Amino acid sequence: MDNLFSAIPSSLPDELFQDILNTDAVRVERIVSRGHVTPEGDWYDQDESEWVMVMKGRATLMFEEGRREVYMEAGDHLNIPAHQRHRVSWTDPDQDTIWLAVFYSGN
Amino acid sequence: MDNLFSAIPSSLPDELFQDILNTDAVRVERIVSRGHVTPEGDWYDQDESEWVMVMKGRATLMFEEGRREVYMEAGDHLNIPAHQRHRVSWTDPDQDTIWLAVFYSGN
Repeated sequence: MDNLFSAIPSSLPDELFQDILNTDAVRVERIVSRGHVTPEGDWYDQDESEWVMVMKGRATLMFEEGRREVYMEAGDHLNIPAHQRHRVSWTDPDQDTIWLAVFYSGN
Repeated sequence: MDNLFSAIPSSLPDELFQDILNTDAVRVERIVSRGHVTPEGDWYDQDESEWVMVMKGRATLMFEEGRREVYMEAGDHLNIPAHQRHRVSWTDPDQDTIWLAVFYSGN
């Protein structure tokens, strides 16, 4: 058994992406951000849909359509259909933000 | 956007099972326990595999094989392959235990 809040490197020059579960049907990923954001002008445009929750910390997602921003704290979750372009526009620089993401095919 | 820790009924005569996401590929479920356990002698024997994490609270899972017990707290997660018989043998009666479960086909 593992713990989602454990084994976080003290140094985190880049965002940390780690598969927790990887099967034909679904992929569960832990992401750790420490002030990291998606590079300006870049958008995630994913073939898979993603259900994502903030487990700890604070972050803002931006969606390309309407440049809509969504502020997220622990427990907040939303579903991002495949090819809905989005970016991480802010994460708290003063603490770790831990995300749980579930990637799957279809919408 | 919803929050996994919100909208928990004050009265909880039975465990609460709620779909958060339900697609052909995956089902994400929130479960809230308040001292509830699987009835003595009953086992979950599921056609789908289940990745499960305790989000809040404390619980013990028991697996039929070897009667192995696993104590879980916030952030602890494990994967239960399809048809691995198991039951919830204890949840903290003094607080809510909130689970996140991801059900998927295959192992």
